[in-house]
Amino acid sequence: MTRTVTSRDVARMAGVSQATVSRVLHGSPNIAPETRTRVLAVVEQTGYQPNAAATSMRTRRTATIGVVVGRITNPFYPQMLDALGAELEPHGLRLILWDATTGPGERAAIEAIDQRRIDGLVFTTATASSAALQHAIDRRAPIVLVNRVVEGQPCDQVDSANEDTARRIARYFADNGHTRVGLITASTDASTAAARSAGFADEAADLGLHLDDRHVVDGGFSHEGGRAALERILDAGIDPPTAVFAVNDLSGLGALDAARAAGVAVPDDLWVVGYDDIEMASWEAFQLTTARQPIPEMVRVSVELLLARIAAPTRAAVHHRLPGEIVVRRSTAHAPVRG
Amino acid sequence: MTRTVTSRDVARMAGVSQATVSRVLHGSPNIAPETRTRVLAVVEQTGYQPNAAATSMRTRRTATIGVVVGRITNPFYPQMLDALGAELEPHGLRLILWDATTGPGERAAIEAIDQRRIDGLVFTTATASSAALQHAIDRRAPIVLVNRVVEGQPCDQVDSANEDTARRIARYFADNGHTRVGLITASTDASTAAARSAGFADEAADLGLHLDDRHVVDGGFSHEGGRAALERILDAGIDPPTAVFAVNDLSGLGALDAARAAGVAVPDDLWVVGYDDIEMASWEAFQLTTARQPIPEMVRVSVELLLARIAAPTRAAVHHRLPGEIVVRRSTAHAPVRG
Repeated sequence: MTRTVTSRDVARMAGVSQATVSRVLHGSPNIAPETRTRVLAVVEQTGYQPNAAATSMRTRRTATIGVVVGRITNPFYPQMLDALGAELEPHGLRLILWDATTGPGERAAIEAIDQRRIDGLVFTTATASSAALQHAIDRRAPIVLVNRVVEGQPCDQVDSANEDTARRIARYFADNGHTRVGLITASTDASTAAARSAGFADEAADLGLHLDDRHVVDGGFSHEGGRAALERILDAGIDPPTAVFAVNDLSGLGALDAARAAGVAVPDDLWVVGYDDIEMASWEAFQLTTARQPIPEMVRVSVELLLARIAAPTRAAVHHRLPGEIVVRRSTAHAPVRG
Repeated sequence: MTRTVTSRDVARMAGVSQATVSRVLHGSPNIAPETRTRVLAVVEQTGYQPNAAATSMRTRRTATIGVVVGRITNPFYPQMLDALGAELEPHGLRLILWDATTGPGERAAIEAIDQRRIDGLVFTTATASSAALQHAIDRRAPIVLVNRVVEGQPCDQVDSANEDTARRIARYFADNGHTRVGLITASTDASTAAARSAGFADEAADLGLHLDDRHVVDGGFSHEGGRAALERILDAGIDPPTAVFAVNDLSGLGALDAARAAGVAVPDDLWVVGYDDIEMASWEAFQLTTARQPIPEMVRVSVELLLARIAAPTRAAVHHRLPGEIVVRRSTAHAPVRG
């Protein structure tokens, strides 16, 4: 049996004070990046585990962060949870999960903050119409919105450049000779769907692409919905589009399956592009071109903002927007993205 | 605004006492099924929400159940979590999640029981070698194992008939004229993989099917691993099998993708069968024949056992085994299962 590694050991090995170790592990904002990196390297190397209960007693905190996800059966959210767990661990923080689609969800999560059972809350599926979110914002509870955001709200928010990247997808279609395009959208209550749909439709209009109203169909962010949406687009009774953008990968994969079932050749007769770059997009059966959301980076920034918010509740709110990246695969004939 | 529904209202509408409402919502074991159904129907109809904090104060419980999952990016686990959330909600119980693959995982979950931060714990990925699990069992902590089990341990366990169902898959292959078969297995530390592999291999031997050692390959329960495993099977330098069983769907989908990439026609030249019936198995691109695990039923029984265990810590441990069902799809030419 080896002796348990203490905070004092970590401090000595990293050449810093115990207070600095504690500040790094609590995510205090005013730590030099080199110091933070050095301390975390020693923490990893020694396997040092801060005692959560003791820490909680000292700081009157719970060392627990809550996360609200929606539709956990959409693989995008498990990928984000995986990244969150990995990001919280070196801070000695636990994660509690609420599913907004089953049960009391958002409201229960907000109650948990009110009752100080958690230190802060990460929303991955916020919508403008959420009363629970509004309550949290009004009370200045320590929260951060990631992925879905609500414009104009005074809380920390992190998303990726949904509108710009969707515009780039429309340009990608135009650059490669497509003139008739389609759009598989989703409930516009979500900022992601709204921004991606608007960006694509606006840029298509600017470029003179033909986006017929009958070729804009709600795919409900699901495989089943995406499949039904492409079926409707193909059955609309007018010339079908030669390129379709689906606002998330699950509905894009559904569209590919609809094309497969209908005998429409992808990419020869139809290009399909999704959004998110979930693991299945790269599978041989699909090889779906998509816009990659930088999940690890989004999660890293969110956790940083949340810990800083817990430390300094009155700091002004910020909105970080990270760039997206188009990953080209077989569903668009491996044609490169220009510019 | 409507008046808040109280426990007294629910009792009156269901024609039972308030104590009975409370016992139903706490999952007490000695409630007649009709009574339980009637109370839960009224709870659903009225939207009654027991106050978790007040309940916790009265009963000295946290109204929170922990769940340990592994590899949450395997869609099987989100499907199980979804079912767990839906099952716990009418009991007024929250769910905390630990991921056994990142961070302190199992150990942190056990600490949470020791510190009474949760009332009980559901393990979905238990293995015989887990020290944390052994500690929980030794201390008679309120836990239940679901999906993966550890034979002979004195704790409540729920699984499905993995070995029997895998035997049926071998018979299904034999009944349809296959004589050379393959097996994509996974780390045998998991009871599920071990039981499925053993059942299939034993029945294949009993039936005189040829299962060459070079056609038994570890697919690591993942799409990537299943893909690599089928590639190895096809490249083994001997006559390839005409039917392959993969011990979970993710590796079965990987095998289908390997066949697709190699130009091997499924089902004409190769049959593939998976296990679990995750959502993707039914997608057009795959149409994977598989053994369905009865997730909602497994979760229902697990929650029932866990709540009964919390109420009566010394009750003898039970092991529930639910039947599996083979769901036939295109990857086995829609050939029906006999007997």
